[in-house]
This record gives sequence, structure tokens and C-alpha cells, in this order.
Amino acid sequence: MKNYFIAKSRRVRSTPYTERIENQGVTAYTIYNHMLLPTAFGSLEDSYHHLKEHVQVWDVAGERQVEISGKDSAKLVQLMTCRDLSKSKVGRCYYCPIIDDNAGLINDPVILKLNDQRWWISIADSDVILFAKGLAIGQKFNVKIVEPNVDILAVQGPKSFKLMEKIFGKKILEMKFFGFDYFEFAGAKHLIARSGWSKQGGFEIYVENTKSGLALYDKLFEVGKEFNVKPGCPNLIERIESALLSYGNDIDNGDNPLECGLDKYVNLDTDAEFIGKEKLIEVKKKGILRKLMGVKIEAKEINITKSIDLINEQNSKIGELRSGIYSPNFRKVIGIAMLDKPYWEADQTFKISINDSIFKGKVCDLPFI
Amino acid sequence: MKNYFIAKSRRVRSTPYTERIENQGVTAYTIYNHMLLPTAFGSLEDSYHHLKEHVQVWDVAGERQVEISGKDSAKLVQLMTCRDLSKSKVGRCYYCPIIDDNAGLINDPVILKLNDQRWWISIADSDVILFAKGLAIGQKFNVKIVEPNVDILAVQGPKSFKLMEKIFGKKILEMKFFGFDYFEFAGAKHLIARSGWSKQGGFEIYVENTKSGLALYDKLFEVGKEFNVKPGCPNLIERIESALLSYGNDIDNGDNPLECGLDKYVNLDTDAEFIGKEKLIEVKKKGILRKLMGVKIEAKEINITKSIDLINEQNSKIGELRSGIYSPNFRKVIGIAMLDKPYWEADQTFKISINDSIFKGKVCDLPFI
Repeated sequence: MKNYFIAKSRRVRSTPYTERIENQGVTAYTIYNHMLLPTAFGSLEDSYHHLKEHVQVWDVAGERQVEISGKDSAKLVQLMTCRDLSKSKVGRCYYCPIIDDNAGLINDPVILKLNDQRWWISIADSDVILFAKGLAIGQKFNVKIVEPNVDILAVQGPKSFKLMEKIFGKKILEMKFFGFDYFEFAGAKHLIARSGWSKQGGFEIYVENTKSGLALYDKLFEVGKEFNVKPGCPNLIERIESALLSYGNDIDNGDNPLECGLDKYVNLDTDAEFIGKEKLIEVKKKGILRKLMGVKIEAKEINITKSIDLINEQNSKIGELRSGIYSPNFRKVIGIAMLDKPYWEADQTFKISINDSIFKGKVCDLPFI
Repeated sequence: MKNYFIAKSRRVRSTPYTERIENQGVTAYTIYNHMLLPTAFGSLEDSYHHLKEHVQVWDVAGERQVEISGKDSAKLVQLMTCRDLSKSKVGRCYYCPIIDDNAGLINDPVILKLNDQRWWISIADSDVILFAKGLAIGQKFNVKIVEPNVDILAVQGPKSFKLMEKIFGKKILEMKFFGFDYFEFAGAKHLIARSGWSKQGGFEIYVENTKSGLALYDKLFEVGKEFNVKPGCPNLIERIESALLSYGNDIDNGDNPLECGLDKYVNLDTDAEFIGKEKLIEVKKKGILRKLMGVKIEAKEINITKSIDLINEQNSKIGELRSGIYSPNFRKVIGIAMLDKPYWEADQTFKISINDSIFKGKVCDLPFI
């Protein structure tokens, strides 16, 4: 596959860390929420092995926040997600599908409850702020909606705990998964969550004070030497092996959350008022006709730039592969696919054409591991 | 400046023409409305000269459409823009700032009135569809909102008229600027507008039928040989010289349309009901405090990846440069800048630091030519 350059401009925003990661050897970017998001520092596979063994610092400033505050903020946030947030607690993160009135996914953010009248929606790649503004204006809600100056640094990998402890003390190890708290560094308070877009463990630092954030960035590399710290980024191999869904890749506005296996984040039996509830009740009653599943393919290589059809023995389309990569762990290509009923059962076989060759594959449950 | 690769995936969608432009030598992309948008076929300057003399075919499928149809469609479309559309006509394109309740720009699309109950909003790079959906849900409007399968091909340059005439006949030359009509090719009807993101003249073909669109793409190159047709894309030099504003680069949600010189698209004295009207009336009454202007800088080179401060003799910031490029026409760097009052007057001088060297510059009116 030929490589192409990325054209930079003010529109595809740099992050406070861009200069640093470019000095540290970033080689490729994508654009995420109108911002540069690193996707490679040389070999994906080297980075994958390193992430699973050591610790990495990631510039994930592209995970922007939509801050919703004010008297009606809880009402607006609830309206936007099919997950019942009535019992949500301050200091906790909530993975929440956001859907439209047709139950189509708009985003799948993590929502942080900062206090009863202030929320951060930590978004995947779509302008949730415009949906929130449209709703708030239409409903005449008393809210303030902004994109605050927050640039997340993720610290990921098994040694992230030791590294973070060295900088922030033992207290940071007390946080539970998807909890967050405030920690001081260089005179500034930082919101830190035990979260991140890998399954190797770690933290996300919501940097509001750019100056202390940059000092913290450097400190992580200084203190991290003994843990073999390296710069990194969400790793395509690791995230697929871990079945962390990517909005726009694995799931999109054409899908509803029940098709995507997000059933446990869909609360239809409570009083929560949200957009698309009626439609979802209807979908649930009728039953879904497609389902997101894992697949394993007897191939050594794949480059996905768009969906690839999955075909049965009769050469009929039975689904589409949406993301995939060679997995060093399974020694074959693994991926995430949307499969039509009734072909979504585990062990169902299929054929797929990759670079003009036909390969055999098999459906499996998610996550792979 | 070092170059970085773009990471492709399903999320940053390919267009129907991607394979063709890659065979034709595209070298760089940006991402626009979650889609690949070519930004260079080798030298920008060669492409600039070619565009001003001959004809180019552009893959601008990234200019996505938000289709709004139904009983309340006119009401919703009007609500979204500060331009009065009450006298708008079917078959015409309208450049329309879209603003939020704080009068901050959300997008600056061209709106096509397809019929009284069907509109296409041909958007710059932000998810206007989410704003429209939020508003429609909040206001309980009877509308249908979709992103239709439309992938625009632009034919730009002085010889575009002869090329298009050869394919579609004399009738295509009768269209006025910003008019649109339907033309048949390969058995399919194509909406074609006399428009495009250059000032060199030309057309935009709103391809709905991908198959005939691809046949048309090839036909344009076949017939275009005698006009020295080449593949191209919006050209940074030409678009700055022509002062075609780029949302996200020159203007953004922090700006209101009066600051951006868009006064003629702001109708405050009519009955049109739109979001942000009160705020704009207030802004107009108080007078703006910043203004978008052209600048000329005594430098030979610039690469803009974020705003660069403009400084006065006392080393105080008086504005910021948002886009800029070396202009072969003016033999210096020209750009688009937001300047503070009272420093926005033409001929005001300033200093700017580019790659650690200080250069002198001068404010000027837009457009440059």
C-alpha cells in the first residue's frame, strides 16, 4: 500500500504535545475531532509488544471534551444517551452510547460527572457539541455548552501504575477502574482517571493547565526511564485484540447500539428520558437483524480503508469487515465485522477477498481474548 | 518542515474517486467531514499555474450534503442561518453562515434549494447534520435529515467551460454563477452547479449515481485532453489569493460573521427567524472589536499549522495570522488574519516571527486581487 502525506493546517489542530512527539519520532497521524492524533511511531508491531510489557505516554488530545454545565445539564446529558444516568456518581466515568431519534449511533463517549451541574463528555470523532447545542436551543434548556481547553495525556501499559505512583504517590493506586480524582503537579490540579484506550491498564490525565501539562509530559519521560517508557498512541493491533470499538470504524450512524453488542448500556426499563427510546424499544421487540462480531481470517496481512464484504459459499454477502489487522497473538488477521442474521453465530465460516486473493474466515465472540 | 503520513481507515472515508486520483499521482490528503480530501498532486505552485490557465477535475466528495426535507424544512434551514432565505429560489445556491446562539460560526456552507420542501446544505468541515438533528428534535419539527450519497466532482479553471460544453452541450453555458440545473450523462441525471472553490470559473457536479459519476470522471479526462486537463484539488495559493475563506482555518466558532466580513450574508432587518439573531443585533450595535483582513508579509516561505501572532512596534499582540502561503503573483507571503481594533486598517504595519526570524508585514483589504 502506497503512503500519502498529511497536509497540516490550522483547521486540523496541533496539540500542546505535537512538537514533542515529532521530536520523539511520530511517523503517521490521523485527524480526530479536527485535531492531529498520532497513529504510529515506526512499527505498529514493535509498539504493540512494548505497550503490553512496559509503559507508554500518549498524546490523545484529540479526545475532546464537551462540557455541559448549568441547571438543566443533567437533563440534557440524559437526553443524549440511552444509558440511565440517574444513579451516576460524581468522580466516576460512564461509557455512554449517544444516539439520534432513529436510534443511530452518533458517538460513544465516556461521560465524566464532575458535579451535579457539570459534566464532561469525552468524545469519539464527531461534533457532539453541535448535537448538544441544537438540542439545548430547541428545548430552551438552561445550560452552558463549551469545548474546554483540555488536552488528554494517556499513560498506558502494565508499568503505568509504578510510573504514576512515583510522580503522584500511593493515592493514585487507590482509584478504581473508571474512577477519577484530582492530583497536584507543578502547582496545578489535574483530573486523572483510571481509564484509557487499551486493555493494558493505565490512566488518562485531563490536562487543563497547558504549562504544567507540558512539564508533566517531560517528567513522565524522565521518571519513566527506569520503566522503559516510550511515546505511543492507541495501537490498532492491541485495540482490536481487546475489542475496543472505534466510532466511525466499527460502528457508525447506520447502526443502533443493540446491533453493536452494547446492550448493557441500553436502559429501556427505567424512567430515563432520552432520544431514540421509542425506536430502541421497537428494535428490541422485533429483534435485531445484524450483529457486530469478531472474525478470524487465515491471512497474514490486511489494510482496511473501507468495509470489505464477507461472502458465504453461495457467494452471497453475509456481512462486512470494518476493521482488521494481523495479530501476532493469533498469528492470523483478526477483525470486527457486522454480520447479517443468521450468519453471526460463532464458528460460522465465510470467504473474503483481500488484495484479489480469497481467504477463509470464521466468526467469533468479542472480545477475542 | 518534516512530512508525516496519513493513516487511512474506514473512519476517514475514501471517496468513489480515491482509487483514480491515487493512480493519477495524488501526494497528500487532509480529512474533511470524515473523508479523504486531496490537497496536492506534487508541486502546489505548478498546480496553481495550471489551474489558472487550463482545467482541472477535483475530487471534492468531502464537501458532504446535509439533506433536509419535509413540511418544516424551510423553517429549520432558516433557523440555522443568519441569511434571509425567504426569497430564495429553486435552482439557486446560497452562501450561508450557520451560527449558534452566541453568534459563533458553526459552518459556512452553500445551500441549494432543490424544491420548497427539500434542501441540500453543502458543508465545510463540521458535523452540521448533528446541529440540524438536535434542533429538529428539540423543536419537534416535521423533517427528515440525512447525509445523501452525493460525491461532488469539481471542474475548475478557464477551460472548464469548453470542456463541459463538449460533454453536456451549449445549455451548460447558460447557467449563471451560483445557479444549478440537471444534465444527463450515461443515462443518469446529474445536478450541476456553476460554482466551485476557486475563482478561475467552473462547475460542481453533484454525483448521486456513483457508476455514471465514475464514467463521467473518465470522460472528463478523455475529452479534456485537448484542453490540457489535469487532476487537481482546492489550491492553497489560489484560494488565498482569491480570499475564499476556509472554515476552521480563517474562521471558526470563536468568531461571529460580522467580524469575518460576512455582513452581506447577515440579515438583521427582516422577519427571518434564526438562532443567534439577538446576539448579532447586540454585536452590531456595540460594534465589532476584531476584523478579518488580508496581510502581505515580506517573506518567501511559510507553513501554517496554527495561528501565528502579529505584533506591533511595542511588541504587543495586535492580531493573528490564520492561513498564509507564498504567492507567486505578489512575490511575497500573503495570508488571512484576524486583527484587533484599531489595528485592522489597510496599510497598518506589523511584525511576525516565522521560523525564528522576524518579518515585516502590512494589512490589506480582501480580496487581494
